[in-house]
Amino acid sequence: MDARAPRAAPDLAMIHAAASRLEGEARRTPLLASPFLDEIAGRRVLVKPECLQHTGSFKFRGAWSAVSALDPATRARGVLAYSSGNHAQGIALAAARHRVPSVIVMPSDAPQLKIANTRALGAEVVLYDRATEAREEIGARLAEARGLTLIKPYDEPQVIAGQASVGLEIAEQAAAEGVARADVLVCCGGGGLTSGVALALEGHAPGLRARPVEPEGFDDTARSLASGRIETNAASSGNICDAILTPAPGEITFPVMARLCGPGLAVSEDEARRAMALAFTRLKIVLEPGGAVALAAALFRPEAVQGDAVIAVASGGNVDATTFSEALARFGT
Amino acid sequence: MDARAPRAAPDLAMIHAAASRLEGEARRTPLLASPFLDEIAGRRVLVKPECLQHTGSFKFRGAWSAVSALDPATRARGVLAYSSGNHAQGIALAAARHRVPSVIVMPSDAPQLKIANTRALGAEVVLYDRATEAREEIGARLAEARGLTLIKPYDEPQVIAGQASVGLEIAEQAAAEGVARADVLVCCGGGGLTSGVALALEGHAPGLRARPVEPEGFDDTARSLASGRIETNAASSGNICDAILTPAPGEITFPVMARLCGPGLAVSEDEARRAMALAFTRLKIVLEPGGAVALAAALFRPEAVQGDAVIAVASGGNVDATTFSEALARFGT
Repeated sequence: MDARAPRAAPDLAMIHAAASRLEGEARRTPLLASPFLDEIAGRRVLVKPECLQHTGSFKFRGAWSAVSALDPATRARGVLAYSSGNHAQGIALAAARHRVPSVIVMPSDAPQLKIANTRALGAEVVLYDRATEAREEIGARLAEARGLTLIKPYDEPQVIAGQASVGLEIAEQAAAEGVARADVLVCCGGGGLTSGVALALEGHAPGLRARPVEPEGFDDTARSLASGRIETNAASSGNICDAILTPAPGEITFPVMARLCGPGLAVSEDEARRAMALAFTRLKIVLEPGGAVALAAALFRPEAVQGDAVIAVASGGNVDATTFSEALARFGT
Repeated sequence: MDARAPRAAPDLAMIHAAASRLEGEARRTPLLASPFLDEIAGRRVLVKPECLQHTGSFKFRGAWSAVSALDPATRARGVLAYSSGNHAQGIALAAARHRVPSVIVMPSDAPQLKIANTRALGAEVVLYDRATEAREEIGARLAEARGLTLIKPYDEPQVIAGQASVGLEIAEQAAAEGVARADVLVCCGGGGLTSGVALALEGHAPGLRARPVEPEGFDDTARSLASGRIETNAASSGNICDAILTPAPGEITFPVMARLCGPGLAVSEDEARRAMALAFTRLKIVLEPGGAVALAAALFRPEAVQGDAVIAVASGGNVDATTFSEALARFGT
């Protein structure tokens, strides 16, 4: 964002302003449930399916919030993102709907389908060679030459404010379902969604507590919450939950999570696959592995969850047919 | 229903009363969309995902409407349905939530999973041998002995009134999307959903026109609409779209459809599979073959559809993993 923008976490006023800008633009996703899932978890399970959001993940919310918050002259020059995944698609669509250019810097070995999809959503894709080039340098050069504004995927106040709209909706929907006290499990990469949801719940549903869920072996946020300082992961790849493999929680997101979240949870790759299969059979939604970890924790970590009900944010559904069918073949009924 | 109940199609007052009883019980499903689907169809495509409804199909709406409409003494004795599919699950859940018994008469060769699911939803499943027994006789005996009320799957005014709530929601949601004139394509078996949607649209969105969509070779409703009298299918099985293979449109549903619907459409099994794969990739929802025929017609019969937008009701998602994965393997990207 521009240099004058605050680098602190968004406050409630900023979150409400983002929600107003998202009205009629982001989809208000329902809360889903199934008695079969309740039985597995031993408590009531409510699922917020952000896979049904535009571009197949919650990322559209933060992207729209950030693009719409730019002053018109800055926005007209265009926006820039580094991403081979869900953030890229969110930025591409948000920019296209604002009729401004977007440039997405992606590694040249990214899946052809992701490159094609990002282009089809209206973005210019600039490929770089991971072995010999740094995306930051390419991005800085492009930004300088064209006056593009970089929109970071999570450590960005307006992005967090946009993701917080998931929490505002949960607060309303949980109240309508008669759920006043529950853990709200959130699939966690850099913590943009988790911290946004935590801030919204603090303001609007103090009986609901956000908790990050990560893949085992990539539980940087859980370890950071436990130690009280930012911890990093040893590896940056090598897990099926590719959408949420980040090196560490963000400088803005971590203090929010440290103040507001309950302890982190971690699940195995097979637990994520099993949750994908159950979401297919019982909820009729498509989840990607990284978007299924919160549901997996809700179902398979009952002893670590508190309350008569648990709410799981199913954060995305951008998964290829082969990965999905493999999960069904192994864990479907 | 009881013998005094009217056998005529529901009027708007009955439809509104059913919608009131469904409030807070049925899920209000969103309208989904994707620019990738718009591009295939050459017009705007809006999808009503009833696969996200309780029990995975729209059938819960009609079941709840019918069970909740019974007088309390009659209802307390319990309800009866013949079905091996979506209607069974809808009735089982609606009865369980009313805390009254339900008996579902199913063929003994029905898939074990469907039998288990129906039981898990609280129903008593009575199996019969298709070769040697008639389900009507078994049902009549049980109804007589226990005072159960038979709830038919589609040719039943309160069931049609419940399915009409899909049309009421579409009328509101289409208006919110700025769509005033469009064809509304509806997956059609016996016509309960199609006639209910048509009645709701007649009352609340006269610029929207319901049109039934069926599998090729099982297009009894399309042929009936063309000839002006009830036509039947030559076969009753042998198509992947099992949920919507009925012998003929109903005595109550057909006159409604004849008065209000545009011409019927039919799609092939492979077109249904291709629509399932596109719904997976672009909407992140799970459709069964019979629940995908309306989307298939919206995408692959553009010349037969009128208007700048088309609305497709995706009526159900109760499909096994093998059938789903085969569709993805053949038509997924």
